[in-house]
Amino acid sequence: MRMVDILAKKRDGVELSAEELQFVVNGYTKDEIPDYQMSAFLMAIYFQGMSAKETADLTMAMVESGDQIDLSQIQGVKVDKHSTGGVGDTTTLILAPLVAALGVPVAKMSGRGLGHTGGTLDKLEAVPGFHVEITEEEFINLVNRNKIAVIGQSGNLTPADKKIYGLRDVTATVNSIPLIASSIMSKKIAAGADAIVLDVKVGAGAFMKDLGEAKKLANAMVDIGNNIGRQTMAVISDMSQPLGLAVGNALEVKEAAETLQGKGPADLLELCLVLGSKMVTLAGKANSEGEARAMLEGVIANGKALEMFKVFLAAQGGDVSVIDNTEKLSQAKYQIQVEAPKSGYVSAIIADEIGIAASMLGAGRATKESEIDLSVGIVLHKKIGDKVGSGEAIAMIHSNKEDVEDVKKRIVQAYNFSIEKPAPTTLIYK
Amino acid sequence: MRMVDILAKKRDGVELSAEELQFVVNGYTKDEIPDYQMSAFLMAIYFQGMSAKETADLTMAMVESGDQIDLSQIQGVKVDKHSTGGVGDTTTLILAPLVAALGVPVAKMSGRGLGHTGGTLDKLEAVPGFHVEITEEEFINLVNRNKIAVIGQSGNLTPADKKIYGLRDVTATVNSIPLIASSIMSKKIAAGADAIVLDVKVGAGAFMKDLGEAKKLANAMVDIGNNIGRQTMAVISDMSQPLGLAVGNALEVKEAAETLQGKGPADLLELCLVLGSKMVTLAGKANSEGEARAMLEGVIANGKALEMFKVFLAAQGGDVSVIDNTEKLSQAKYQIQVEAPKSGYVSAIIADEIGIAASMLGAGRATKESEIDLSVGIVLHKKIGDKVGSGEAIAMIHSNKEDVEDVKKRIVQAYNFSIEKPAPTTLIYK
Repeated sequence: MRMVDILAKKRDGVELSAEELQFVVNGYTKDEIPDYQMSAFLMAIYFQGMSAKETADLTMAMVESGDQIDLSQIQGVKVDKHSTGGVGDTTTLILAPLVAALGVPVAKMSGRGLGHTGGTLDKLEAVPGFHVEITEEEFINLVNRNKIAVIGQSGNLTPADKKIYGLRDVTATVNSIPLIASSIMSKKIAAGADAIVLDVKVGAGAFMKDLGEAKKLANAMVDIGNNIGRQTMAVISDMSQPLGLAVGNALEVKEAAETLQGKGPADLLELCLVLGSKMVTLAGKANSEGEARAMLEGVIANGKALEMFKVFLAAQGGDVSVIDNTEKLSQAKYQIQVEAPKSGYVSAIIADEIGIAASMLGAGRATKESEIDLSVGIVLHKKIGDKVGSGEAIAMIHSNKEDVEDVKKRIVQAYNFSIEKPAPTTLIYK
Repeated sequence: MRMVDILAKKRDGVELSAEELQFVVNGYTKDEIPDYQMSAFLMAIYFQGMSAKETADLTMAMVESGDQIDLSQIQGVKVDKHSTGGVGDTTTLILAPLVAALGVPVAKMSGRGLGHTGGTLDKLEAVPGFHVEITEEEFINLVNRNKIAVIGQSGNLTPADKKIYGLRDVTATVNSIPLIASSIMSKKIAAGADAIVLDVKVGAGAFMKDLGEAKKLANAMVDIGNNIGRQTMAVISDMSQPLGLAVGNALEVKEAAETLQGKGPADLLELCLVLGSKMVTLAGKANSEGEARAMLEGVIANGKALEMFKVFLAAQGGDVSVIDNTEKLSQAKYQIQVEAPKSGYVSAIIADEIGIAASMLGAGRATKESEIDLSVGIVLHKKIGDKVGSGEAIAMIHSNKEDVEDVKKRIVQAYNFSIEKPAPTTLIYK
């Protein structure tokens, strides 16, 4: 096989075989295929797309390019969840104990990564003492005993995806549905998921700006799952404003604890119930999503969901008194109000801008070496459809520095106002 | 400017500015833009094409990437001719003295290059003593005095084109009309042409297999010429069989001498008259192509065309007695007949195959270091439409080795036969 021939085939819209895609992915991972051929190949995929079979074959070739986590010693169906980005997305913190409370095994491998706020792992570290430095054996034992544990990422998962992603970033080939879908799915599969629930965000603040594109991405990922025998379901959810109210690490832990008691923001709870119902159903713990939802509402009402959160945190060294009394979580020195520049109805909140504002406070990492300030962040007071008067508080900044004029400005910019009350937003599209 | 933004624009079908194309071409020539971005850019062009303005701007950016030949000291309009490949294409040898005989200045820069037979320069060296190692001053003086001279290629012409072509070759992006057109035109313009006549070959043995594609290429090149102020005309000519009868260096010199006396193959003469008429018209030596053609037929009939060939060769050291007596040209040791494997009408002769057969005899260069055998080659005896009996001679091999079974086989394979007489071929499509 020659890369130039495979390239010409893809360019001409001919379907590639699994062997050809393996040749490309292996060759590129091993530096046998040069960047310049791979980038031309990626651009050809951008224009010609990929069939469902090709996308699945590409995904498996990327899975096989590196280590694969073996979760076979964990009893039950391991269901993983993935959200395509999003700001203030506390769903993982809530969903993990929520479905574990119904006996669904949650064996989460989590990285730190860059972003507006920390990753799940950073957020959890806002609980004093909590740590993910456990052995694989401990990890498996914990999941079998408690149904839930989180471990830091180890091993060399999907090196092909890392290398290809780096090249896509500099060659204007990020925005291709089969490439996005295979990248996400390969990581989940290499991490050992038996079944996958996907949360595809759509809206101004999301990677997918358009509902049609979001549907295509969701379908492409579900197709991959079906083609390779991992049950996969997808939800398309709104990102025309941040989910929930809190953006920041400790602030999100507090919000998660409240939501697990049914006292959190309605949109955040609703999305968790929708995603959770699918996870519970895929895990075979309920016969329908309706039944699953009722079960999830039950464990929130009877306190088992919150209890599971505490069991999980305590098992990995966390001081769970901060969950009972969230005042004990790390607090920022200053709380500074952001006021509405005019009166009207909130019509949109650009999530990305809120995210950038939070990272300006130190809530996220700009580079791998950056230290995260777990205490800082933003709490929104007004969301889409809320009426505000000029000068009324729309958000609260939690900061360790006194001068936050730039952050304030950013938050004000993120808010759009209208004179008429906007139509209610749709949280779940599918 | 950032390459990744320009790449995204092209990917999305946005027209690029001259400045953006200069940025790309200069950056790539200077190794500031990496291969992997350039190859993705080329693939995006493959899919999105380029507007006439973009193609012209790309051409000029490539012209300006290196040296440009200054022919301003030569009087008159310098008209250059370019053929898009082809086998046994002796037109340059004939056209140069033919139009020079009418006072059109022919200032030819020629390289050696690889191919089935040698370049124009190699062919001319079949005339004993002829050489192109002359100074630029001598070259210009010769053209001003005799109207014709050939110099070996010097300087660093269109380095961008060389580098881009190398990348296209390994990234399946050769076959793009704007990229082919700008590559050809940039070389002609850098070589100092005021006006250009293009001969686009079409057919099984040519780079362009399809008449529609050939027309697009011809139009793209004429558009470039018009956009940058160099008058350009194009002819689309047939390559369903080799042009003329001779394929080989000394053999083509002989054929050229015969054609200049009106005694050569009809198809070769006709194409030279059509191309020559356009050259003479563009040079302002005739008011119409019809008038130009009559003038060209005149200098063939009165011997001035052949005389000009001899003046040209002699001025650069050539022994012109070989033109008066072509038996004195370098002769191969063996002349071996190729026989028809069956009877019927010749329906096609794959020119590429005949070319490969000639290069197997040593008529061309496989690598830059290869020595050309000027005496060897193939002379066709039968062309499309000719009736042959089984065992009748269809071609003559001129070889310096006795065993030419592989060459014979190749020639036989190149010939297609039909029972019915095929429709006459169209030599000139446009």
